[in-house]
Formats: sequence, structure tokens, C-alpha cells
Amino acid sequence: MAVQAPEQSADTAATAAADVSLGPAVALSCRECGARNPLGPLFACEECFGPLEVAYDLPTGDPEGLRKRIEAGPASIWRYAPLLPVPADVADQPNTDPGFTRLVKADNLARELGVAAAGGTLHVKDDSGNPTHSFKDRVVAIAVEAARAFGFTTLSCSSTGNLAGAVGAAAARAGFRSCVFIPHDLEQGKVVMAAVYGGDLVGIEGTYDDVNRFCSELIGDPLGEGWGFVNVNLRPYYGEGSKTLAYEIAEQLGWELPDQIVIPIASGSQLTKIDKGFKELIALGLVADKPYRIFGAQAEGCSPVSRAFKDGHDVVRPVKPDTIAKSLAIGNPADGPYVLDIARRTGGAVEDVTDAQIVDAITLLARTEGIFAETAGGVTVGVTRKLIEDGLLDPSLNTVVLNTGDGLKTLDAVADAARPSATIRPSLDAFRAAGLA
Amino acid sequence: MAVQAPEQSADTAATAAADVSLGPAVALSCRECGARNPLGPLFACEECFGPLEVAYDLPTGDPEGLRKRIEAGPASIWRYAPLLPVPADVADQPNTDPGFTRLVKADNLARELGVAAAGGTLHVKDDSGNPTHSFKDRVVAIAVEAARAFGFTTLSCSSTGNLAGAVGAAAARAGFRSCVFIPHDLEQGKVVMAAVYGGDLVGIEGTYDDVNRFCSELIGDPLGEGWGFVNVNLRPYYGEGSKTLAYEIAEQLGWELPDQIVIPIASGSQLTKIDKGFKELIALGLVADKPYRIFGAQAEGCSPVSRAFKDGHDVVRPVKPDTIAKSLAIGNPADGPYVLDIARRTGGAVEDVTDAQIVDAITLLARTEGIFAETAGGVTVGVTRKLIEDGLLDPSLNTVVLNTGDGLKTLDAVADAARPSATIRPSLDAFRAAGLA
Ligand SMILES: [Zn+2]
Ligand SMILES: [Zn+2]
Repeated sequence: MAVQAPEQSADTAATAAADVSLGPAVALSCRECGARNPLGPLFACEECFGPLEVAYDLPTGDPEGLRKRIEAGPASIWRYAPLLPVPADVADQPNTDPGFTRLVKADNLARELGVAAAGGTLHVKDDSGNPTHSFKDRVVAIAVEAARAFGFTTLSCSSTGNLAGAVGAAAARAGFRSCVFIPHDLEQGKVVMAAVYGGDLVGIEGTYDDVNRFCSELIGDPLGEGWGFVNVNLRPYYGEGSKTLAYEIAEQLGWELPDQIVIPIASGSQLTKIDKGFKELIALGLVADKPYRIFGAQAEGCSPVSRAFKDGHDVVRPVKPDTIAKSLAIGNPADGPYVLDIARRTGGAVEDVTDAQIVDAITLLARTEGIFAETAGGVTVGVTRKLIEDGLLDPSLNTVVLNTGDGLKTLDAVADAARPSATIRPSLDAFRAAGLA
Repeated sequence: MAVQAPEQSADTAATAAADVSLGPAVALSCRECGARNPLGPLFACEECFGPLEVAYDLPTGDPEGLRKRIEAGPASIWRYAPLLPVPADVADQPNTDPGFTRLVKADNLARELGVAAAGGTLHVKDDSGNPTHSFKDRVVAIAVEAARAFGFTTLSCSSTGNLAGAVGAAAARAGFRSCVFIPHDLEQGKVVMAAVYGGDLVGIEGTYDDVNRFCSELIGDPLGEGWGFVNVNLRPYYGEGSKTLAYEIAEQLGWELPDQIVIPIASGSQLTKIDKGFKELIALGLVADKPYRIFGAQAEGCSPVSRAFKDGHDVVRPVKPDTIAKSLAIGNPADGPYVLDIARRTGGAVEDVTDAQIVDAITLLARTEGIFAETAGGVTVGVTRKLIEDGLLDPSLNTVVLNTGDGLKTLDAVADAARPSATIRPSLDAFRAAGLA
């Protein structure tokens, strides 16, 4: 659920702190022109308006010592604090401690998809185990540390679901005020999840795009002073949280990179950061250098990156989303061009599946591995199946598939596919007649 | 959601395996008369009909080596395999790998409850991070290993919620067929959660009590041959899963027992097993021997143990449950007398709170610590507050409070308490007028 970056106001830039200490982070560098800025609540290059990302001075030179330090760390993303834009004592600060979720060896699913027969293996990285049950807890936790460092007192975002809960929970625990903006007509379940943490929740009469535009105005206005919008003026830090997925997967595979990985695409940020994470692990000597292929997964009803990939374009043409995979429904994905570049460079691909295929894949994953994924997980599993069928993903290799959210949050998507086998009177005769014994 | 134990049939007893290998488990011993039985799918003493529990040959003699072995183990309950009735290679078997959930240092909540001012500390053990988001994944995972050892091919249970999902997920992943029985009029969300894993789900026309009675008939009938009912004929193993909560809490406190712990009471099994776990840790030399107080928590609408405690009775009088805390709504708790004994012996207490206090406590925990608990978590937090106010729980000591489930599963309970602060047009003027900036 990425917010489209608005024009960066002078006001926001002015609050950049000079003496910020965020561990190994040393600057914000432009992904387009390479210009460097000091660490601060900036999100666009002042030279070329390109996106900024965190540059590091990483602890090279003693990979064995670093690996031991990580393995002795907490069972959360903070075990990787030496590689993240966070203070060294981050694990002692009140936060939600997300991460170190299960990497499930999915032998049953591998059999169903023909991976086992081909001699490959399949793992599912199940991020539904996070505190608010989506990968958003990872990125928000990093944004919270930046917000602390920059002296923000309110955490904010626009959201249609997972992000609202993650921000509400993290703000409550870390002692920030939160004020989250949502379209006014969200389902009750999502409203409850966003409001229960006690921050302010504001319904906006309009669409998600209206909510985004409103937030952009607010950032440029004195009303929004002291506010950290996790996915706008804290976005460069926020995005780094997705690197931890790469670190965990490699560590859980025994400090080895997978041959292939299938990642959902919303804004595309997660995919680019996982690639960044893998590269860092190689550069640090924590894993052996080897080729890996990165695959992107979209829903057909919101597949601008998949379309561009198939058409051989470098530019992503925006679309109007229409899919049950609402957590991936970003019609104009900011990192689309970078995703195309990574998929092509690594020998991967970008593919999409229909809503019906998403539901099929959710139930396939549930009945083979006991993992109940949200629609985004149906997208990655469905795309994996399609890529194998089309010969684009090699079933004889080791593949990791991401599930980034929880089926409990998108119950409606599978309600028709998940019904009782029978309804009977409480008697053995009735049970015998039902033919289920 | 414990099933009332039915008469144990000769059929069931006959399937007991002679050469079962379940790690350090050596026998089933009667909690009343001490009679010993070989490991098998038994649940009641053949001498006195008392409940059976697993007896062990635990690895004494090298506590430092055992502690190191545990700390080097997986981030799941299987790190404690040397203390559980499971094969030594359990972590390599396909199962849901539950456990090692967060122990959250709850400083904000401690301030609100007067614990911080008194010099004490408060921790929340948050079991919503388990694979299907409740502590039931722990007990089911142990039952699955017993079912494997005894050659069962179908996993079953009666349930009104958390247990159905836990059994469905574990059976799917472990390669068992599952057939779960529920009252036919459950909320759609719970039905979806129970059905999505692809096992058989049977709605029974009747109440939860009718479902239980039906399951008891089924165990004694040839129709139920080869079926492992996790909380009936596998109950002695199943129950041991709750010991892992004790182990994790102690390890996460730095191999130290808490001074006080607040545990929800459904059947009462969890509370008795946590006490058993603490005692084992002391006996093994993994923690220093020290006194600890165990407190039980019930909802006022289903408080038979609390009532017996306050009245000074040893016997628990059954009640008809009427509370929003449905996962604790067992009117005739099988382990009630043992709970009374433990609370009295350790200097603890049993207390209950109203439905309104449960809702208050859910929102208190959410806004202070960012943890969205199910109603059972509202019961423990609410009871903790009440026990402090009444002088029964010492705020100057170190206390652990259990949250055993997830707020996403009991959304209705807090729907009225978790609403937007305002709904506005997408304009700065409207936001200014709302008075939230
Ligand atoms: Zn630039
Ligand atoms: Zn006996």
C-alpha cells in the first residue's frame, strides 16, 4: 500500500537532523543520479527528483564474526541491526519486534507443483506470523526508529488495510501518537484493526487516491508539522525493512541464497529491497556469491509491471486496479521500472494470475502446508505454478515463495471455497449416511 | 475448548502400541492413584478413572549442556524436544513449528496498572504469533506426533473456534486426513478458518455440548477406528504442549522463573501444565528454585473455578456459560480441582471479570503495547488489573500475563469500542475543523 510520493516541500526538508545516529546508515543517496544527502526526513533527490535510498558503511572484514553476532541476536529483525538504519540498542527500545518468521519447507506443495519430481525444493516464507500478521510490521518498525531519530511525535500513513494496523500497533507500543487515514467505506474488520490501538483513525470521504492526495497536502502544510508519514517522508528508511526478508531467508537456508524467489509486487519496493539484501550478503561474505533469479507476481486485475515485462517495455503504464488482491492493488507502482530491470538482469520474469487462480492457490497452499495466506499469498503461489507450467521457473532448483499476509484479513475471498463438507444431526447414523467416515 | 472425557472404550485401549518411541516419555501415569500404563491412546486410568498424564525420564545431570542444546535449537517449541513426548528428530518432520512467540516487556501497561510505580515489571506472553494465531498450535503439534506414533490416519476434534483451525492446519501439513466437528451455526469467519485447510468439516445440528456427546459416541464406535481425537484419546500428549509456555517464559526471562503469572482458565489444563513445566525446570537445574504464584483468570459469565476459589471449596460446580470469551466458555472444567490446588498452594488466586471489563482490557492492552488480543487476553489483563486493585497480586514483583489468542478472531467483541475518530471530506479545512491536528 505505497503512497505515491508528492512534491517534497521545503518545510519537510528543513527538519532534517544534523546529528542523527542510525547505526551503519551514513547518507541518503539518489537512485538515479547518485547525489548524496545527509540522513533526514527526505524522500526525493533535490538534484533530479529521483527516489532516495539509505547508503551504509557496512561492517565488512570479519564475516565469521558478523555471522556469529547475528546468530546470537534476538529472534526478530533486530538480529540484523548491524545492517539496518537503526541505533545499535534498537532491541532495547519499545517496538513490535517483528520478523524471524517461519521459512516452511513445503514438500507437499512441491509435489503438487512438480518441483519434487524435478529434483528441486520449495520453501514458503510465511510473514503472517508477524505481530499484526503482515510484512508491514518490518517496514514500519524501521520507520519508527527514523521517526524517533528525527524527533517526530506523530506517526501517520494512508492505508486500506495492513499498513494501518501495523502503524497503529507500532505507534502505541513506541509511545507515538498516531493518526491514520483510510477511505471511509472500508470493511468493518479492517476499521476495527486500525482503530483498536487507540490512535486517531480518520475516514476520508473518497477513494484511496483521494486519501493519498489529502496526505500529500498535509505533509506540505503546517498542520502536518512533526508528523512522520511512514511511507512518504520516512519512505527511504521504511523501505529498508524489506531487506530483512532477504537476510532471514538466507540465514534460514543455512547462509545460502535461493536459486529462485517469487515476490509479490505492489509498489515494487519489496522486490527491489530483497535484491539489495541479497547483494549486501554477498558483498559482506555472509553467503557465497551465486546467480539467483527474481520473479515478480501480480494479480491480472492490477498487472502493469507484468504487462510491461511481457511487452518488453522499460516504462510501466498505470492501470485502474480491479482485483481481490487489494493489498497489491497499486495501479502506478513507483518502483516498477526497477522491478523490470531486476527481473531481466537476474533471468527472472514478471507474471500475473486471475482472481480465480488466486483463490485456487490460497486453498492449495492451505491444504498442502496448513498456511492460510491472504490474497497476496495466493498471487505468489499461483504465479509460481504458472511460471513452472510455462517453463520460466526451473522446478529442478531451490525456490522460495513469499506469503506476506494473513488469510484472516481477506476471509471474503475464500468464503465460497471454504465450506463445511456436510451438516448433520448429532447421530452416528447421520454421520454414516454422510459418507465421511 | 476441551472435550469432556467420555467413557474410555476397550476398542481405543486395544490400539495402544507396545514399541512407541516418544523421546523422554516413558509411561502414562494416573494423576489420582499413580498407576502406570504403557504409552498409548489412553486418557483415563483403568484402576480409578483418574486422568492420565505423561511420565518422563528427563535428561538430568548436565543442566549447562542441556541449556546450550536448547539455545542452539530451532525458534519453535522443538527446541524443548528433550523435555517433550516427541521423537528426537521431530523438527525434521512436517508440522506447523509453533512456539517461541514474543515475550513483550510491557512497560506502558505496567505504568497504567501501577506496577512500574511499585517497582515491579510486567511481561505479556503473546501467543497470537503462532501459525494459526492461538496457543492451540502448541498442543496440537504434540498430539500430531502421538498420532503418528500410534498409527492414526485421521485427526479429529470438536471445536467452536481456535482448535478447529489448529487441527486443520496441522493435519494438512503433516499429511493426515482431518475431520473436525463444529456446531452448525458458527460465525462464517470461524467456518472459513476451519474449512480452508481442506479437511472434512462437519456442522452438527445442535449445541457445542451436542457436538461433544457425538464425538464421545464416535470414539467408541467402529466408525471412529484409526481416529485420533486430539483432546480426547490423545489428550495426555496434547496437554503437554502447554508446558512449552513455561519453558519459553523462563528462557526469555534469562532462565529465571517469574514471581507471578496470570493464566486463563478454560478446562484448566494449561494452568496445571505451566506449573508442571516450572517444576521440571527447577528439577533439571535449568532455573534457580524460587517460589512463584499462579493466578487463574475467568470471565464472570463462566467462572466456576473462581467461584469455588472464593468460596473455599475443593469441588467445582458446573455452570452454563454466558460470556463473550467463548474460547474460555467451558462450564465444567475438567482440571478445575487441580487449578484450585495450585492457586492455593502457590499463594495465588482465581478471579473473574465482566464482559465490559474484558473489552476495556483488550483496548487497554492494544493502546499501551500494540497487542490486539482475543477475548481470552482481555480476561487475563482485566483480571491482572483487578487482582492488583484488590491487593492479591503484588505490583512490586515480576509478573507475566498470558495472551493466548488473536483479536482478529473475536472482532465483534470490540467493534463498538474501536471506531474512527472522525469522518471528513478530503480537505485541510475539514481536517482542521475535526480538531485532530
Ligand atoms: Zn538525483
Ligand atoms: Zn488411577
